[in-house]
Amino acid sequence: MSFMLHGIPISSGIAIGRAYLIAPTGLEVDHYFIDADQIEAEVARFCAAQDTAQRELEILCAELPPDAPSEMSAFVNLHTLILRDTMLAEAAVDLIRTRHYNAEWALMEQLERLGRHFDEIEDEYLRERKADIEQVVERVLKALAGSSFAAVAADKAAKVDNHHEMIIVAHDIAPVDMLQFKSKIFHGFVTDLGGRTSHTAIMARSLGIPAAIGVQQASSLIRQDDLIIVDGAQGIVIVDPTPMVLEEYAYRQSEKTLEQRKLQRLKFSPTQTLDGTPIGLYANIELPEDAAAALAAGVVGIGLFRTEFLYMRNRYDLPGEEEQFEAYRQVVEAMKGLPVTIRTIDVGADKPLDLRDGDTEVAVNPALGLRAIRWSLSEPQMFLTQLRAILRASAFGPVKLLIPMLAHAQEIAQTLDLLKQAKRQCDDAGMVYSSELKLGAMIEIPAAALAVQLFLKHFDFLSIGTNDLIQYTLAIDRSDSAVAHLYDPLHPAVLHLIAHTLRQAKQAGVSVSVCGEMAGDPVFTRLLLGMGLTEFSTHLSQLLVVKQEILRAHLPTLEMSVKEVLAAYEPAELQAALHRLAQV
Amino acid sequence: MSFMLHGIPISSGIAIGRAYLIAPTGLEVDHYFIDADQIEAEVARFCAAQDTAQRELEILCAELPPDAPSEMSAFVNLHTLILRDTMLAEAAVDLIRTRHYNAEWALMEQLERLGRHFDEIEDEYLRERKADIEQVVERVLKALAGSSFAAVAADKAAKVDNHHEMIIVAHDIAPVDMLQFKSKIFHGFVTDLGGRTSHTAIMARSLGIPAAIGVQQASSLIRQDDLIIVDGAQGIVIVDPTPMVLEEYAYRQSEKTLEQRKLQRLKFSPTQTLDGTPIGLYANIELPEDAAAALAAGVVGIGLFRTEFLYMRNRYDLPGEEEQFEAYRQVVEAMKGLPVTIRTIDVGADKPLDLRDGDTEVAVNPALGLRAIRWSLSEPQMFLTQLRAILRASAFGPVKLLIPMLAHAQEIAQTLDLLKQAKRQCDDAGMVYSSELKLGAMIEIPAAALAVQLFLKHFDFLSIGTNDLIQYTLAIDRSDSAVAHLYDPLHPAVLHLIAHTLRQAKQAGVSVSVCGEMAGDPVFTRLLLGMGLTEFSTHLSQLLVVKQEILRAHLPTLEMSVKEVLAAYEPAELQAALHRLAQV
Repeated sequence: MSFMLHGIPISSGIAIGRAYLIAPTGLEVDHYFIDADQIEAEVARFCAAQDTAQRELEILCAELPPDAPSEMSAFVNLHTLILRDTMLAEAAVDLIRTRHYNAEWALMEQLERLGRHFDEIEDEYLRERKADIEQVVERVLKALAGSSFAAVAADKAAKVDNHHEMIIVAHDIAPVDMLQFKSKIFHGFVTDLGGRTSHTAIMARSLGIPAAIGVQQASSLIRQDDLIIVDGAQGIVIVDPTPMVLEEYAYRQSEKTLEQRKLQRLKFSPTQTLDGTPIGLYANIELPEDAAAALAAGVVGIGLFRTEFLYMRNRYDLPGEEEQFEAYRQVVEAMKGLPVTIRTIDVGADKPLDLRDGDTEVAVNPALGLRAIRWSLSEPQMFLTQLRAILRASAFGPVKLLIPMLAHAQEIAQTLDLLKQAKRQCDDAGMVYSSELKLGAMIEIPAAALAVQLFLKHFDFLSIGTNDLIQYTLAIDRSDSAVAHLYDPLHPAVLHLIAHTLRQAKQAGVSVSVCGEMAGDPVFTRLLLGMGLTEFSTHLSQLLVVKQEILRAHLPTLEMSVKEVLAAYEPAELQAALHRLAQV
Repeated sequence: MSFMLHGIPISSGIAIGRAYLIAPTGLEVDHYFIDADQIEAEVARFCAAQDTAQRELEILCAELPPDAPSEMSAFVNLHTLILRDTMLAEAAVDLIRTRHYNAEWALMEQLERLGRHFDEIEDEYLRERKADIEQVVERVLKALAGSSFAAVAADKAAKVDNHHEMIIVAHDIAPVDMLQFKSKIFHGFVTDLGGRTSHTAIMARSLGIPAAIGVQQASSLIRQDDLIIVDGAQGIVIVDPTPMVLEEYAYRQSEKTLEQRKLQRLKFSPTQTLDGTPIGLYANIELPEDAAAALAAGVVGIGLFRTEFLYMRNRYDLPGEEEQFEAYRQVVEAMKGLPVTIRTIDVGADKPLDLRDGDTEVAVNPALGLRAIRWSLSEPQMFLTQLRAILRASAFGPVKLLIPMLAHAQEIAQTLDLLKQAKRQCDDAGMVYSSELKLGAMIEIPAAALAVQLFLKHFDFLSIGTNDLIQYTLAIDRSDSAVAHLYDPLHPAVLHLIAHTLRQAKQAGVSVSVCGEMAGDPVFTRLLLGMGLTEFSTHLSQLLVVKQEILRAHLPTLEMSVKEVLAAYEPAELQAALHRLAQV
């Protein structure tokens, strides 16, 4: 019987093939108490398993193929860090000693405690790190059970039957397991777990693997060898498709390949509208290693370099100035003279610095709490370190410094003051930086958009973060499935805030880009152009589809049409106006 | 040595007296395992303690003095409900049976589990119910220890020395303990715990007791018999004041009494500005019993009757239609023909209906989740019940139906549709309601204020909820101490949203009131008047101070001056404009 499952779309592309089920390890373990005189033996058993797991990770790292994505070794290192972390290992040993739990129970108990903590974290990126901890725990549990990870992988490879394409269906997949994809054993995957920013998702996007994650119950509903279709762009899985559906998807698959090839031809044409207005196409990147691909894709600069990746390398604290500087310089140099917009760290509320203390209080509404610049201002030494590292990188090419989540005049004043201080510190230390460094602010809180006049005097450029702006304007957390349907980029209030920001900035002669998802969705390209946007910053995968829309656009016509959109409040009116905009 | 402690201000008034410390019971208990053959005996011991606690509550209830506030018996009943709740008692018995915990440990373990759950609840009112559960647990623990609550109370009374005023200093106070205040044994209190909407706070306001709650560490820092000053309006406690400070506060205390007497004289004069513009002064009430006091205070109606009190009577579910109808009718009749604005339930995100299931998922950002009307629309049967009850109350006097947290056109359409359905159901059941019933919407989400045009067509009146509007506009949760300092009613963005709403509504001929705290704070009265507000709805305690400001105001002058305020964005400019507004 044919049926469809829904998950989270994380990469484009279609895969058609046979399901290869990886049985869930099902982190279920025995619970029993250890006799008092056996405690130390149990601790030793735990430590031995930890050593086994570590050896496995070392072997994995040593054996990484030269063409493995550069993040891969970062993931393996992260798992090694977690494995040795006191938060996990020492706490588990403690539970063995004080509560007399067996090693497996102790480990699971500690995992559960950490899990609760992570569940409350607002930042999606950090929250996803829970999966990494689970993967490490799984590795240790396997070692405790005497079965090695390598053995499981070997078993997987042996079972592969090459006469049809295979699609992995699993409860969850560790990023390292994706090495299998490089050798084309598997062509796509489906997992029960995972979020948009899980390492698994990041890897799938980077490797261009069609995948649907967070497909609840997939691994129980799909059977071994079922014929399945994975539509990565929609995040859906069609199990046992009818011949008609199969044909349709095979057609779409070939069409997609064609389209991709066609889009590639746009790569080196100048980005301008039909009436000749030049538009800036910038890239959003997450890792320093992404810069090379951005340059190759023909962007005119990096519109958003998120610095949250620094947490991937060290989960509790930002790395020191040198390490940050090297990462930023790497990007600036890779972009060969094109501007690089570096955003200061956007985490917090979950108080990652205090996580190691165990029971730190987590905010009831972290999205409305101490995050991004608010957190940076509350940790001035950490912030100054990041500012100095960014300043120093500006000596190697044009750098634009971007501050997230500003809303209040006093925050602006404090930020300007700390930047001045960071410059003085650089001067004192004889560190060089560019006097041309541009300072910008994210407009992502309704108050910032409404009082954008406050920003125009103090900043060289603005960047509208539509994702958060929409969330706060509508009072909707779109990662909350109970209200996600109310997240609406086309709510008249949202459109007015974006239009207002663009209008005011234009009057003041301050440049504005949009770096939220709206900029990368071709559905909104005409609307944004018509509002006066001339700088789009998007994920690399969206670059060419947006460019295609830009090349087809005629600005004067769009501007007229957008006026009608902005005058509409009632849904029917708005729909009609949007429909006309799509036609002109 | 004189020092000052800061807490949460919950009631006005100043108390000066000697500290009477109630030692924290410190819910710390022994943990030990019960032998398998003693399990049932332990369960019996637990049940006996539960019975003892219940008898105590019954005695308390029977002995309530006739002048005790009407809420008191509701609190006692709530404690009885909690005591018998399966969530607490059965779960604890379960822990005794399955984990062999001693009764005290089992009870504390379950309390801790529930506590985690409650900590995550967004709704401040529901979150505060945690204190009620703790008070019940404390009562059972005392019974387990063989000491009764009555004995402790008797001991307290015996120790009271009447030759100076006493101020209770405690870790926490149960509302029933406040009966002591009625007999004037104590004149104020200070607690370590408590929030703005704890039962303790509600009682203190209702009894007019000067109090500071949430004064962290107060019970450890203040010693028995210390001379202390409690400033209820500021939420501060001055310990061992210098003679000068003491004199100052004694002076303020007498001044306050004078001022109160002076204000009383304003009670029956018509509320209008100097230039003769009539202004509507309405009351915000929380309990049906508050209506009588509102009428006596000379208001022209109830501007906000919160229906969250319904949860106080039944913690898991709204009461049935009849019980709700009776509560609403009671208020409508008490107001003798003056309009009563009933707001539909504003809870959710914490999903109270599911709480009894134990481990329900709590939203990561409940304030951005399924709350208020969003929740009501997701529970249409529950919502229809409330709508019918409100409709039926409208047969007894003018009722205005107010919907919280609307932001989207489709929510408005769904709400209108359900109201139509509720009317049809009333018709079918032969239930009478007024055809004059007015329908209104809260403007408390930035999107609602920005797209107020969406509301003007469908609603007879609007009510601006400044508290939430400020929170979302600034992306600040003001109950989060890490960012509370950024909560700013005077942020230009906030002022613009309020002014925009008032302007658009005036043009459309739709009446608007403000019912958030800004309406009750005399600091903002001139500002709101100058923006064109003609309806203020405040807590009763703030009524006369706001009225005093109104009587002194000259609208045409204020309007000019407010224009300058709205044109200011930089803090210095804004300060100057506000200063001028205060002077005119």
